[in-house]
Amino acid sequence: MTKAPIGVFDSGVGGLTVVKEIMNQIPGETIIYFGDTARLPYGSKSKKTIITYTRQIVRFLMRKGVKAIVIACNTASAFALETIKDEIDIPIIGVVKPGAKVAARTTLNGKVGVIGTEGTIQSGIYNRFLSKTNPKVTVFGKACPLFVPLVEEGLIDDPITFEMARRYIGELLDKDIDTLVLGCTHYPLLRETIRKVVGDEIFLVNPAYETAKCLAAVLTEHNLRNDTTQALNHKFYVSDGAEKFKRFANTILPCEVMETKDINIEELG
Amino acid sequence: MTKAPIGVFDSGVGGLTVVKEIMNQIPGETIIYFGDTARLPYGSKSKKTIITYTRQIVRFLMRKGVKAIVIACNTASAFALETIKDEIDIPIIGVVKPGAKVAARTTLNGKVGVIGTEGTIQSGIYNRFLSKTNPKVTVFGKACPLFVPLVEEGLIDDPITFEMARRYIGELLDKDIDTLVLGCTHYPLLRETIRKVVGDEIFLVNPAYETAKCLAAVLTEHNLRNDTTQALNHKFYVSDGAEKFKRFANTILPCEVMETKDINIEELG
Repeated sequence: MTKAPIGVFDSGVGGLTVVKEIMNQIPGETIIYFGDTARLPYGSKSKKTIITYTRQIVRFLMRKGVKAIVIACNTASAFALETIKDEIDIPIIGVVKPGAKVAARTTLNGKVGVIGTEGTIQSGIYNRFLSKTNPKVTVFGKACPLFVPLVEEGLIDDPITFEMARRYIGELLDKDIDTLVLGCTHYPLLRETIRKVVGDEIFLVNPAYETAKCLAAVLTEHNLRNDTTQALNHKFYVSDGAEKFKRFANTILPCEVMETKDINIEELG
Repeated sequence: MTKAPIGVFDSGVGGLTVVKEIMNQIPGETIIYFGDTARLPYGSKSKKTIITYTRQIVRFLMRKGVKAIVIACNTASAFALETIKDEIDIPIIGVVKPGAKVAARTTLNGKVGVIGTEGTIQSGIYNRFLSKTNPKVTVFGKACPLFVPLVEEGLIDDPITFEMARRYIGELLDKDIDTLVLGCTHYPLLRETIRKVVGDEIFLVNPAYETAKCLAAVLTEHNLRNDTTQALNHKFYVSDGAEKFKRFANTILPCEVMETKDINIEELG
């Protein structure tokens, strides 16, 4: 079982920022990735829909024999993790809790900003997890629906993206936050632009990094860490546009993605 | 049969610009609308996926007893119309052909610009239809992937949208086009901003308007026009976010949308 792969999924390419951190922090683990590119974005969709999609994808990954699952999407973590974790018998973690914990422990003035999709922000989930760790924290959330399309359009370092970031994040700065959670797995790709907007004084929390750390701990706890040396055979599946996904993946990941495969998740799931 | 409704569908709210034109031009017809909000946007997805989705939706609409169908989405018209029309026995039209015909007949210098989603532009379908009507036409296509999210974010009249429009359409202006097709049903909502970018000399083609005209002609040809007076009972279905859809619909349509209904298209279709 320790040699079994880790299942990781997201609505599209954003979850690759989590895969990158896993590859860096626990390089002995094999990844089976699923990007639901046919149905992205998740951020504007309802809880019911996201639970249905998550259930289909978890079923797909379990059929591939994974030993643990990472929901590398904030929206799906916010909406579906609680429901799904009771339905399966392997460890499953999301990206919200690890990020929230670090933010709650880092803030000095107790004012934490969270940026994410409409779904993540409206769910109030960061608020709940942050308050649980540190009841003195006040959370200011802001949905940034244009960030994902701007990243997908490749406008990573562009005046338009800077101007949108200034508008979105400006109102959080007015609240005097000292910590900002990048609450969507696409957003670490905009880190430089966001840094320009917030200046040097604000601590940026990247949940992708914290999630990989949390995964390592969970695997150890369940005696699932792979300590043997083996050739890794990462696999990448998407529900649409395998070639486009591959090009994007190869700009993000430390290893080369040789092949991505299109699958019909509605039929399979 | 003449009293039966017209089925109209789109990936989301964009197709409402077509519904609006139908209501204005043939006000005696009842509409059954489906917006595939759980799986939008269509513009970045593959032909295979769009055909699958279109087939599910057409099946759903036919079970509602429609007498004719309008694909109120350029991407689905480009990718799926040819395949689907051979599978059903009622009239079905898309938005591409009516818009292309008018553009081909309107241009004086033979240089026509087309803006649309990645899928529509890459399919080359406007090129084919324009050339069929007028072989002397040269078509310049430009994908504008950020226009749909900008509309959905409500940035209809905003400096950021103007700047994106200037970048996208600027290169078409350099080609000396005299006619520009708004090749995505969201784009008529950006008409004022686009007008500011192109100036007064360029003819803007709105396929929504031309499609409603074409539908009227098709209904007459098949003896399907409803000439009786009856209370109209338009119905609006979506695959996600019924309330959000309703709010948007009520800012666009000439009648009030009282109710929208969520349905599970994957199970039903």
